[in-house]
Amino acid sequence: MTRATLRPDLAILTMAGFLDARPRVGYFYSGKKTMTSVTESMMNLKVKDFQSLPVVVSENMTVYDAIVHMFLEDVGTLFVVDENTLLQGVLSRKDLLRTSIGSQDLNTIPVHIIMTRMPNIVYCKKTDSLIVAAKKLIERQVDSLPVVHETDKGFEIVGRLTKTNITKAFISLAETHDL
Amino acid sequence: MTRATLRPDLAILTMAGFLDARPRVGYFYSGKKTMTSVTESMMNLKVKDFQSLPVVVSENMTVYDAIVHMFLEDVGTLFVVDENTLLQGVLSRKDLLRTSIGSQDLNTIPVHIIMTRMPNIVYCKKTDSLIVAAKKLIERQVDSLPVVHETDKGFEIVGRLTKTNITKAFISLAETHDL
Repeated sequence: MTRATLRPDLAILTMAGFLDARPRVGYFYSGKKTMTSVTESMMNLKVKDFQSLPVVVSENMTVYDAIVHMFLEDVGTLFVVDENTLLQGVLSRKDLLRTSIGSQDLNTIPVHIIMTRMPNIVYCKKTDSLIVAAKKLIERQVDSLPVVHETDKGFEIVGRLTKTNITKAFISLAETHDL
Repeated sequence: MTRATLRPDLAILTMAGFLDARPRVGYFYSGKKTMTSVTESMMNLKVKDFQSLPVVVSENMTVYDAIVHMFLEDVGTLFVVDENTLLQGVLSRKDLLRTSIGSQDLNTIPVHIIMTRMPNIVYCKKTDSLIVAAKKLIERQVDSLPVVHETDKGFEIVGRLTKTNITKAFISLAETHDL
């Protein structure tokens, strides 16, 4: 056939929007993605592809120093570790702000007094689906999840997953698909 | 034709995954979404569909009272308005935390001293694309955007768009498409 002949099967694809018919110059892929491409992109997103570096402090750091550390590192959540660098607690900007307007001296109170502890820490693993992790952030009303690696002794912290990471994933979905 | 006859045009659709051929009982829509459904879903998401209610305070409220107000309202950002309820400033949890560890008395310093003012306020409108608003949150490194309605006198605040809203949108995309 000539390049401009409309074959019945291609006609179907043209009607379905897969191909643009350009008389004389043949058929060209129109640039539309296959059916489930964005869907599949979303399903394949993993925590490890979007996580940030974790910022940790020791249990005995003072609340004042933790606040300064948070600003220096420019993060919204600090993870508290023991001497074996295993996860012991989580400190959010909200926890620190609450304490800062209390009557206690920020320079003497250690973070382990105010941090969220196990079993109340919400966490994820690096191979978890980003969708599942996003649901944890919303359902448990936290800004950040420690990304952990489980060992016999406890949780090692390998990352930090925040609503900022999810927002970046949302944008990257749009950019991948040229929205 | 009989219901089980494979018409050439339907055969193409079957190959393309649009239809399942079930001999003797005819063709059924397979449940797969059309090509660009998730893509289109994303493009059609608007700020107004995901925004939260704004929480506003007056310019003369003290920093201490603003922090308490932030906890009572359970938000991460307060918008500061003048006597005509027009947008004058934005107060983030980070702004308040920074001030709380300073040497100033939180009970005497008014929020207008520490707030972010125009032209440094990043905002959006309710008919804006959610993708564009998400990019603003990331590029300008803010947790929240006031959703504004522009008038001759200034900006009225009609909503609040946060990374939490974007995270919910991300989840809803997945849920709409049964991921």
